[in-house]
Amino acid sequence: MTGAPSDYPLLIGQLLANLPQFAEQEIVSDGKRFTYAQFARRLRQLANVLTDLGVKPGMTVAVMDWDSHRYLEAYFAVPMIGAILQTVNVRLAPAQITFTLRQSCAQVLLYHPDFRELAQDFASSSATPPRLFAMADYEDHLAAAATDFDFPELDENTLATTFHTSGTSGDPKAVSFTHRQLVLHTLAMAGTLANQPDGEGFRRSDVYMPMTPMFHVHAWGMPYLATMLGAKQVYPGRYDPDELLRLQHEEGVTFSHCVPTILRMLLDCRTIDARPLRWTIIIGGSALSEALRIEAHRHGIVAIGGYGMSETGPVVALSRSVRSGSPALLGRAGFPVPLVWARCPRTGNDNQAGELQLRAPWLTAGYRDDSTASAALWADSWLHTQDLARIDADGAISIVDRIKDVIKTGGEWVSSLTLEDLCARHPDVVEVAVVGIPDDRWGERPVLFVVPVPERPPPTLASIHELLRPAISNGTISRYAIPDRIISRSELPRNSTGKLDKASLRTSVQ
Amino acid sequence: MTGAPSDYPLLIGQLLANLPQFAEQEIVSDGKRFTYAQFARRLRQLANVLTDLGVKPGMTVAVMDWDSHRYLEAYFAVPMIGAILQTVNVRLAPAQITFTLRQSCAQVLLYHPDFRELAQDFASSSATPPRLFAMADYEDHLAAAATDFDFPELDENTLATTFHTSGTSGDPKAVSFTHRQLVLHTLAMAGTLANQPDGEGFRRSDVYMPMTPMFHVHAWGMPYLATMLGAKQVYPGRYDPDELLRLQHEEGVTFSHCVPTILRMLLDCRTIDARPLRWTIIIGGSALSEALRIEAHRHGIVAIGGYGMSETGPVVALSRSVRSGSPALLGRAGFPVPLVWARCPRTGNDNQAGELQLRAPWLTAGYRDDSTASAALWADSWLHTQDLARIDADGAISIVDRIKDVIKTGGEWVSSLTLEDLCARHPDVVEVAVVGIPDDRWGERPVLFVVPVPERPPPTLASIHELLRPAISNGTISRYAIPDRIISRSELPRNSTGKLDKASLRTSVQ
Repeated sequence: MTGAPSDYPLLIGQLLANLPQFAEQEIVSDGKRFTYAQFARRLRQLANVLTDLGVKPGMTVAVMDWDSHRYLEAYFAVPMIGAILQTVNVRLAPAQITFTLRQSCAQVLLYHPDFRELAQDFASSSATPPRLFAMADYEDHLAAAATDFDFPELDENTLATTFHTSGTSGDPKAVSFTHRQLVLHTLAMAGTLANQPDGEGFRRSDVYMPMTPMFHVHAWGMPYLATMLGAKQVYPGRYDPDELLRLQHEEGVTFSHCVPTILRMLLDCRTIDARPLRWTIIIGGSALSEALRIEAHRHGIVAIGGYGMSETGPVVALSRSVRSGSPALLGRAGFPVPLVWARCPRTGNDNQAGELQLRAPWLTAGYRDDSTASAALWADSWLHTQDLARIDADGAISIVDRIKDVIKTGGEWVSSLTLEDLCARHPDVVEVAVVGIPDDRWGERPVLFVVPVPERPPPTLASIHELLRPAISNGTISRYAIPDRIISRSELPRNSTGKLDKASLRTSVQ
Repeated sequence: MTGAPSDYPLLIGQLLANLPQFAEQEIVSDGKRFTYAQFARRLRQLANVLTDLGVKPGMTVAVMDWDSHRYLEAYFAVPMIGAILQTVNVRLAPAQITFTLRQSCAQVLLYHPDFRELAQDFASSSATPPRLFAMADYEDHLAAAATDFDFPELDENTLATTFHTSGTSGDPKAVSFTHRQLVLHTLAMAGTLANQPDGEGFRRSDVYMPMTPMFHVHAWGMPYLATMLGAKQVYPGRYDPDELLRLQHEEGVTFSHCVPTILRMLLDCRTIDARPLRWTIIIGGSALSEALRIEAHRHGIVAIGGYGMSETGPVVALSRSVRSGSPALLGRAGFPVPLVWARCPRTGNDNQAGELQLRAPWLTAGYRDDSTASAALWADSWLHTQDLARIDADGAISIVDRIKDVIKTGGEWVSSLTLEDLCARHPDVVEVAVVGIPDDRWGERPVLFVVPVPERPPPTLASIHELLRPAISNGTISRYAIPDRIISRSELPRNSTGKLDKASLRTSVQ
């Protein structure tokens, strides 16, 4: 900022500037309906409630809730008073939740009744316990609060949010984002999603419902975008596939986002066949397999791959069909969005791919209380994703694999993702996973885990070999990639955000 | 900026991050075609040419050119090396052009052959003459330049552009914009224009051609947006209506912007009837009259009102049809775009309207060498537009009039714009203008200027009275608003950017 009267910091509250244009638009949550005009008043009421609870600029307010209007209100009101919103991953194990709460030193903890015991146990065992605020009393407190509040003008580099990564390796790590970063992510998403081909994006005329939880990377930032645009918003509470489908149908939801696991659950619902859907869903967190994309398409769901991670705010790339000319490519990580620079410096081990490294105005500055990991994340001033990727000729990013999941066998690199995408097409499997295990002769060898179709035997090695033969012939995978072991499971282990837990699969066979 | 390795300044060069996605897309100019890949290389070549001419960060590079690929390249390369691009309004009178050149202290002046004499005269009469660079040699110089250039990482508050207002009152005043402001304007426009209803916006699949000159407020910022999106761009040189229509047809132009005068000229072209058009045109600079909007619509042109001024970067509001439910409202100044706060504090003279005041992240910090005018522009940290306006119930801005043009008569305010909009519907007129002149009894009285339809007499006072009667009955205008004098002219005086010169009309009758 320059100190001039024209200075305009990029603050979350500025996303509300256009609100008079859609004062009557709806926000649906918990069986209730709120207008945006009510939402604006409720933000001022919540600001008064928080202030009365002793919240001051720089303090941390932790929230444990399912997706709701309450969460949306906290997304705005907490940072707008200068405090930091900690979105607690309630899908973690209790010990990990306690770890994240302790690390963030929240002064106030808002909890849904489902988490009362955990919240109270934490408070009573903590040396500096947070003040507890029961969401059960939320509406009463708001109703009793004054409707006036003067939000302060903050520095745009003020921290706005903090949350923990899903912790695929070791304890979850806390990342945080500033007002400026969240505003820029929102602006970039507005331009990106509205510029998608028809039926592949998100515009103000769409109806929005999150299906990645609001505790995880700001539900991919979409509640901020939906609010800035004035779109109708639907918050589904705790995720239940039948309830998600009911809301989609009854509220006319047209735009959502989720991990592949949630999409799989929706497709497995009996109620999904009851009606044709028209629904655009951005898929992230894990790769969107071609088999899943096609199955979704049969139900009227346009599933579109995106790319991001907790550290990246999250969205840095999004797929689209038009320029590539092929809907099959919708499953890719996608095209970098405006202002995002992506590079994949060659590693030497593979002349096709390298670690994906990023620069964008909304990437976290680092991990809380972990300067070593932060420095590694930002070596050479590029964010290191630890994903092996390549930039295709059309500018799109193709993720080859997580660097730690890629299988080194026979002197070549085999992508576990590619192998999974191919094996998932086997008619007798519901789900698959591939991990590499150490092998004296080959370095590593791929092991295939399958969840067979109910009441069907798992596929034989011969049938997998048959399935992979064309991909070997056309050079998609090396001949070393054929798994020589198949392990059948009733389900695959996943972490709190629905990602495959490959570390535990590897451990289980070593 | 925080000093962290994650810092990412908002720089004009960052708008090029997605360029690998549309390397083969076209830029059409001067009868030539360039790909975006060539454009990127040419920027590096231009940066070398400028550096060889002695251009250093902080210096000013002035450009006198018609709309061209050269201008687009200067839009990027000059700020990207840390210099300031001065876009010279070549439509001003020679003395005023000299005034603007002198005030900006440009160290280098790039000139089109059409302005050779003026450029050479200026240089020879200047105490600190700029180095002259003839656009006639532009291609030769670029071809000879190295194709590598390391653009510096700048502070985002570095000045990027400067130009002069059209100077409706007194000498033109210089405004300037920073990298940050231009990037934020571009991002906000991307989200706004792609979120317009179908046929009323600008998406990456559109074909863009400016029709407000590139010397004036960065052609409304659209060349930056078109480049960020990777849209096909067409630059039409010096504006000739038949040539604009030819390019629209042959290059498939779907999105443009202009002042009402240019739209009027297009509609008056004989060639416009040769084919049906599909063309979205944002109209700004002056109000879009309903008569003109409807006439354009008959030719397949969707004309949409916008609002902005030199000081505002420029776009702060844009009309759309859907939410209002009425295409008639497309002529309004429009809805504030994201991040734009608008207010119209009541003046006391009128309980419906007040001066439109704005806050947005891309408004100029002030006028060069004029701290008094700058302080007045930013009184109370809001930008004062000197437009009388109101915010409608749906959140849209309706401009009542320029404060200095509103007619105070019989104790009431009469909008000259409203009167013009109504009188323009008279079948015997091509154009109209209304100004107030001092009157001892009434304070001011409206005078109507008309340009009659060729070979028809000007309208009588009685027929104007007849035309206005319904608007008086329904309260749209006061009965004091009926002009009691009609003056016929063969054309109306306009300033360099096509706006009516009401000061000169007033002088002519006093």
